Amino acid sequence: MNELDFDIGGDKLREECGVFGIYDLDGGDVASTIYYGLFALQHRGQESCGIAVSDTEGPKGKVSAYKGMGLCNEVFETEHLEQMHGNIGVGHVRYSTAGSSTRENAQPLVLNYVKGTLGLAHNGNLVNAPQLRKELEYTGAIFQTTIDSEVIAYHIARARIGTPNVESAVAAAMKKLSGAYSLVIMSPRKLIGARDPYGFKPLCIGRRDNAYILASETCALETIGAEFVRDVEPGEIVAITREGIASNREMCLPDPAGEARCVFEYIYFSRPDSAFDGVGVYRARLQAGRFLAMDSPVEADLVVGVPESGNAAALGYAMESGIPYGTAFVKNSYVGRTFIKPKQSSRESAVRVKLNVLKEAVAGKRVIMIDDSIVRGTTSALIVNMLRDAGAREVHVKVSAPPFLHPCYFGTDIPDEDQLIAHGRSVEEIRQLIGADSLSYLRMERLKEMAGGKPICTACFSGIYPIEPPQEDIRGSYER
Amino acid sequence: MNELDFDIGGDKLREECGVFGIYDLDGGDVASTIYYGLFALQHRGQESCGIAVSDTEGPKGKVSAYKGMGLCNEVFETEHLEQMHGNIGVGHVRYSTAGSSTRENAQPLVLNYVKGTLGLAHNGNLVNAPQLRKELEYTGAIFQTTIDSEVIAYHIARARIGTPNVESAVAAAMKKLSGAYSLVIMSPRKLIGARDPYGFKPLCIGRRDNAYILASETCALETIGAEFVRDVEPGEIVAITREGIASNREMCLPDPAGEARCVFEYIYFSRPDSAFDGVGVYRARLQAGRFLAMDSPVEADLVVGVPESGNAAALGYAMESGIPYGTAFVKNSYVGRTFIKPKQSSRESAVRVKLNVLKEAVAGKRVIMIDDSIVRGTTSALIVNMLRDAGAREVHVKVSAPPFLHPCYFGTDIPDEDQLIAHGRSVEEIRQLIGADSLSYLRMERLKEMAGGKPICTACFSGIYPIEPPQEDIRGSYER
Amino acid sequence: MNELDFDIGGDKLREECGVFGIYDLDGGDVASTIYYGLFALQHRGQESCGIAVSDTEGPKGKVSAYKGMGLCNEVFETEHLEQMHGNIGVGHVRYSTAGSSTRENAQPLVLNYVKGTLGLAHNGNLVNAPQLRKELEYTGAIFQTTIDSEVIAYHIARARIGTPNVESAVAAAMKKLSGAYSLVIMSPRKLIGARDPYGFKPLCIGRRDNAYILASETCALETIGAEFVRDVEPGEIVAITREGIASNREMCLPDPAGEARCVFEYIYFSRPDSAFDGVGVYRARLQAGRFLAMDSPVEADLVVGVPESGNAAALGYAMESGIPYGTAFVKNSYVGRTFIKPKQSSRESAVRVKLNVLKEAVAGKRVIMIDDSIVRGTTSALIVNMLRDAGAREVHVKVSAPPFLHPCYFGTDIPDEDQLIAHGRSVEEIRQLIGADSLSYLRMERLKEMAGGKPICTACFSGIYPIEPPQEDIRGSYER
Amino acid sequence: MNELDFDIGGDKLREECGVFGIYDLDGGDVASTIYYGLFALQHRGQESCGIAVSDTEGPKGKVSAYKGMGLCNEVFETEHLEQMHGNIGVGHVRYSTAGSSTRENAQPLVLNYVKGTLGLAHNGNLVNAPQLRKELEYTGAIFQTTIDSEVIAYHIARARIGTPNVESAVAAAMKKLSGAYSLVIMSPRKLIGARDPYGFKPLCIGRRDNAYILASETCALETIGAEFVRDVEPGEIVAITREGIASNREMCLPDPAGEARCVFEYIYFSRPDSAFDGVGVYRARLQAGRFLAMDSPVEADLVVGVPESGNAAALGYAMESGIPYGTAFVKNSYVGRTFIKPKQSSRESAVRVKLNVLKEAVAGKRVIMIDDSIVRGTTSALIVNMLRDAGAREVHVKVSAPPFLHPCYFGTDIPDEDQLIAHGRSVEEIRQLIGADSLSYLRMERLKEMAGGKPICTACFSGIYPIEPPQEDIRGSYER
Repeated sequence: MNELDFDIGGDKLREECGVFGIYDLDGGDVASTIYYGLFALQHRGQESCGIAVSDTEGPKGKVSAYKGMGLCNEVFETEHLEQMHGNIGVGHVRYSTAGSSTRENAQPLVLNYVKGTLGLAHNGNLVNAPQLRKELEYTGAIFQTTIDSEVIAYHIARARIGTPNVESAVAAAMKKLSGAYSLVIMSPRKLIGARDPYGFKPLCIGRRDNAYILASETCALETIGAEFVRDVEPGEIVAITREGIASNREMCLPDPAGEARCVFEYIYFSRPDSAFDGVGVYRARLQAGRFLAMDSPVEADLVVGVPESGNAAALGYAMESGIPYGTAFVKNSYVGRTFIKPKQSSRESAVRVKLNVLKEAVAGKRVIMIDDSIVRGTTSALIVNMLRDAGAREVHVKVSAPPFLHPCYFGTDIPDEDQLIAHGRSVEEIRQLIGADSLSYLRMERLKEMAGGKPICTACFSGIYPIEPPQEDIRGSYER
Repeated sequence: MNELDFDIGGDKLREECGVFGIYDLDGGDVASTIYYGLFALQHRGQESCGIAVSDTEGPKGKVSAYKGMGLCNEVFETEHLEQMHGNIGVGHVRYSTAGSSTRENAQPLVLNYVKGTLGLAHNGNLVNAPQLRKELEYTGAIFQTTIDSEVIAYHIARARIGTPNVESAVAAAMKKLSGAYSLVIMSPRKLIGARDPYGFKPLCIGRRDNAYILASETCALETIGAEFVRDVEPGEIVAITREGIASNREMCLPDPAGEARCVFEYIYFSRPDSAFDGVGVYRARLQAGRFLAMDSPVEADLVVGVPESGNAAALGYAMESGIPYGTAFVKNSYVGRTFIKPKQSSRESAVRVKLNVLKEAVAGKRVIMIDDSIVRGTTSALIVNMLRDAGAREVHVKVSAPPFLHPCYFGTDIPDEDQLIAHGRSVEEIRQLIGADSLSYLRMERLKEMAGGKPICTACFSGIYPIEPPQEDIRGSYER
Repeated sequence: MNELDFDIGGDKLREECGVFGIYDLDGGDVASTIYYGLFALQHRGQESCGIAVSDTEGPKGKVSAYKGMGLCNEVFETEHLEQMHGNIGVGHVRYSTAGSSTRENAQPLVLNYVKGTLGLAHNGNLVNAPQLRKELEYTGAIFQTTIDSEVIAYHIARARIGTPNVESAVAAAMKKLSGAYSLVIMSPRKLIGARDPYGFKPLCIGRRDNAYILASETCALETIGAEFVRDVEPGEIVAITREGIASNREMCLPDPAGEARCVFEYIYFSRPDSAFDGVGVYRARLQAGRFLAMDSPVEADLVVGVPESGNAAALGYAMESGIPYGTAFVKNSYVGRTFIKPKQSSRESAVRVKLNVLKEAVAGKRVIMIDDSIVRGTTSALIVNMLRDAGAREVHVKVSAPPFLHPCYFGTDIPDEDQLIAHGRSVEEIRQLIGADSLSYLRMERLKEMAGGKPICTACFSGIYPIEPPQEDIRGSYER
Repeated sequence: MNELDFDIGGDKLREECGVFGIYDLDGGDVASTIYYGLFALQHRGQESCGIAVSDTEGPKGKVSAYKGMGLCNEVFETEHLEQMHGNIGVGHVRYSTAGSSTRENAQPLVLNYVKGTLGLAHNGNLVNAPQLRKELEYTGAIFQTTIDSEVIAYHIARARIGTPNVESAVAAAMKKLSGAYSLVIMSPRKLIGARDPYGFKPLCIGRRDNAYILASETCALETIGAEFVRDVEPGEIVAITREGIASNREMCLPDPAGEARCVFEYIYFSRPDSAFDGVGVYRARLQAGRFLAMDSPVEADLVVGVPESGNAAALGYAMESGIPYGTAFVKNSYVGRTFIKPKQSSRESAVRVKLNVLKEAVAGKRVIMIDDSIVRGTTSALIVNMLRDAGAREVHVKVSAPPFLHPCYFGTDIPDEDQLIAHGRSVEEIRQLIGADSLSYLRMERLKEMAGGKPICTACFSGIYPIEPPQEDIRGSYER
């Protein structure tokens, strides 16, 4: 079960990050709670992780931080957690890309500014980061990382000089920032959360006794035994202090219809046991499966999901269609980051090491296979072929999302257009390429229904961007 | 577990392991194929792993070997595989127990004897190992590990002096060995496979072009793209040489009815995509679920499995009963060996970090929860409670095996009787302890049907041992 | 020391470091030459090390950098060097102190600013760093480390906006900086070297074919097969470009008599095979020994040095006095950073593990033991005692420096005054504490002679500071 | 300072091993004392190390052991030592060669045999090991390592069956063993030490309160604060029990004149602060220098040693000749095992990274350079050349040993004859090859004098072997 980490053939989209923050008013140490919170968010980023804590009653500016490359499991040892004392803290998980995966870029960013220290963790992507960097550099700024968090931190630091408190400085900074961001910020005495006005990325508030929590997903609240309080709203800034939660909504859009939640949080990124802005992710996926059954029915003997993220939609399809749900695949869960990939020349294939077909389940059957997306299509073709080898009589592929056609500038790593199988191809052409007997995608109209009627961003499917995208493709442009 | 405490004085903890062997008659390097084969068998042992290869055309006695503590993923790096040249080899994965997990005990065992070198990998447990050790010591033997493989190796080495070939020496050694063992042995020019006469543990033969493979499970054949040839029979010794496969059946039982396959291979150990002596494991588990539905029906709205091993039986139950199958749990797959367990005093619980409930799936429903076994019962109680917290109206627990009551001397690590929840308790008492609305186990009579009618060992449930167990409980005696 | 406790709130411990820079006009890769150069400077810093390289013909702003905690030996692997391509680069070794040894503080500092990238390595200590940080913060600066290099980088970045080139920006920045600093800076097309106007710390220029080198010590030139060109002068900025070396002397003191070379470079810091501003370090130490023999002669049978740094002065003493030079100690060179120190309660002592006495050499003799300094005095007492245990009839201690009495604010880590054995004690009192038969120190007047007549800083002995020290002792303020 | 680990250019001979044993009659834990003892013996082996301890009052057969590849510093962590409880133990350091440097071969060997457990550590080399292995294999033995210790252990195990105690079994085994060996053996209740009848390798006895120690060198006694009791005699077996030290001399040679101490222990292997069979190593080296001055005087201005092992002989030469002793070289002590060697094609040389010349010391002078041996001669040539580059007018090389001409079968790693510079060359030819103005070796006749008149083995110089060497070169023949 994970929508989580299983990327069958290196052919899944990747989320940018997960953030977590906590402030225990009763003064308890929070480092290990952050650790478990990050565990629950690990599917949002496996490249690097970090924790920074401070003590609201201690000397200003004393921060303990530890960051490293890899999973929480790999980076943190007991002694790290035991040596980090403090009742306020932030944590971060980051995803791995080829280029900029360096220790320098690990978050949270910990820094000193005019009012003491800040710890800052960020999920999302600014579309005007290069321009903001240039502007800052022309006034003497220096940059030691290539992450947007450093740009955001500079704006907060500069805005702070003329503002009464850090949350006002965050608001002032947000006026300059364009793009997707959910932020968790720790100052010496406050925990701040903020979402961009469009609400691209999730951020929720939880509570456990006298501790307040901010997290990318509600599943992190469950994991640490906290109760869900509410979502931070798009454009909202919340400041958690000894006095409780204060809210600043000056950056909220005048008309919520303009909000643009990332629909891919429902389709793939978020864990199924999370709810994003009030809509359960599992339920959304079941619903996508039902829509597929309504909109593109086909006669068959068995409905199966491509593990793990296809399973919920497969169950929804089975419920709606009455065709039995089954299991067709056995996944090898021991294939980790350090897995040695088979060479092209070898007889072994990476897909077969990760995924086997249950012959007994599919032999002689007409199979409906549900996947949440097709990116390059190569893995889909391999899996369809494996099902046929195992004796499936027919293989009908249903995708619980529309075809990917456009780049994302808000924090999702989508390959170049020419690598997208749907780019410049009809559905029939794609069907032939992956070797399926039939192929259908979720209809565009269904997306908003699936997301419970909330305003969503569908740019990767529709090309309609809620914010003007940059003139040139900025992704990766300021990498060392 | 640590390398420091090396208990030389006895034997090893009874364990579950996986073995793999390959001989490529065309002379290709086999180390990386063994690596992928071990990946497919990793569920059989996560404590340590090892590979040894040799070249049948090279100088006799030149063996490259690499072993280490941990998963294949953790132990092997690309350079290890690249530096191991040879067209014949064996591999092993070993299961982690509390006590005797040391590097010295990692397999395969590589040794020099009168005829050159042997590489030996072993799955199972001898019941007369302590006695055989004593006998050997009285003739001047020295022991450097606490694994049975060393005892087996000594017997082969001694038998080899008066026998024409290594397979005869294996046969002669088998006359002394009592217990469960599936062996894969590499000599300078031959690959040998052998199963004890009772056939407790699986071992199958595969082929890929001109390479022959021996493996604990058929799923390893699939993974490396080999085809299944047949199972090694209980009591059979196969010798793979340039001339092909030769078989020695002198140790087979006169009456196959006396064979005693470990039924837990079907219930839990083997991967669902494997077949053990001709019976598909997935099918066996579906069948167990169907039996539960037939034998202990209950009214409910939803059937769910405890992931992962309960899912197949849950599907079988759903098929037979007509009650909808669903998903109730989200498992966090990032919890690895180095996971820092929450302290008792902390607010986090290890179970909640690993497993969350999908509230949307179970709220308001009467849920049938299928698990493959209940050992101590503590986790079951927690999960039942989590389902209730998530709003389940009723929780009916069905177990796809009979209650555990007796120790195993053949390679399965079962806790002491007084830690088994079923020991000295009625089913009703167990039900109360785990807080379920109802509880049923698979009936003993169903086990043989589930295993396709093959003779099986049911000692852990029935207390009827196919081989006389040792007078005293030898399991504890090897451990500090 | 650990990475967890990252004190953002101030500045760094004053430390001794080594810097290295190279620009190969012929375009060859320089990373491995930097590695060997840092090896030769390793005695100047064992806490952390780092290398950053760039290609003057490549895209501006593409820097490869690798840093880590520990010795060059421990941090760098072959693959790191092989993956760093570029013909210009800088390197740094940093010294280990108790407090602020974190990965974040490792150098070189690599950053983006308005004109591209800078790599900056720095040896020394600013006395006005806290004040400069405050000023910068009040204009919106953020700090991610606690090292002075970040302060220097900010000043260069800001100065660069209104200046024609980076060397002018360095000159403008130097007008703000007060304290000790030798800098090596890499911009996309230039290698810059600079020394503070007092010339506290060494920096020399070398050449190998068409490659120019900057290094803290001349021994690094020897090691890489380069020839010594000249020293960078106190206050000088040199810019190495395709056109050769350009010099900017605007920051040089009007009167060189005000310069203040750190005399401890001669006494202890520099390697004996280096020359600092034209004066050979080995010769200086021989000379110190000769002065001791002239100024405080004593009758004895043997002159020995406390290894390694006391040996040269011992030889000088022997030459001048005619008393035979000998070896009294065997040092265990395997005692590295990870050495497990004996517990107080154990029978072993850390000194005895590291140092044994050659009984045969000292038994029955009157021994003169030369050491380069006595700080706390505890080790001296132990060694004197070991000599007596080995049979030395008399032990006369001579110190090739005057007594330490005052803090250093320019980059040398001297303990608090109350830990200095010479603080508040007469020489006779110290003699009694260490148990010597006699004790003499180098006379203050000899220091300048020893340094070849060059103007030196003697503040740690004399309390006369070439630059006004900070009002309060800033050294403690940066540490937790 | 070390005769210890500094191998200037990969051109030194290497010792086989160092052993250490301790039995604390008062019951104190001994693991950390073994650790410090091994530190003092680290120069005898840097490939691997290990410690095994047991409790004489605890259950028989409970041994805690930890071994690993690398230096003590690298292998052992505090927790290892803390977890090893027991008042009796053995330790071992082993030297690194290209071929057989595997974890399997690390010592001590820990094994179970008929009477419980043995821990065995061994220094030396058997000349009849291959033959003994074959014989054992023909009686059914299996070998899991390629070290002689396993052969020795088998003989003890077999002999133990018919003998009253373990020391008698050791004596019986020694009758079969031919070659060089100093053994330290731990049985459940006894600590045993033994030297081969020729006394090739050192072994001494020490005492600290109620703890008895066995060690390869006396410097290990100093380090742990123990007093020297006596040497184990050639051929002697000592058994340390609760009753004290018992001695068995049945294997001693009838005529001590036949003993054959390895003269290279005096020349290079042992630490200068050790005494071997009553003769101080430092004194022996001084003496060698004096002999060189007597036998081959030359006019010069300065005598220098090649660090570290040439320094003592240089001092002796200076004393005898009246020519001043000086220091010519600065060694880089940070060059460890993981040092990345310069490529052939690079401008850096490994020798220059490790060793610089003090120009000021040698410029314009006629220099006598003393080295303890010349093996291949390549490094000598480089160093002579470096002295000339630094301005030396003449370079006279004196070697404090005769020329190497023959292989050693007793535990010293000497290259093949055709790699020895002295093989087939006159002294004059060698002089020309290394570029010296003159060259002289220690005269053969001086060796025994140097060793205090004790019978010594000079086979590597003279070709006269105290034991008949094997027909064929056995070295490395039974490596995997």
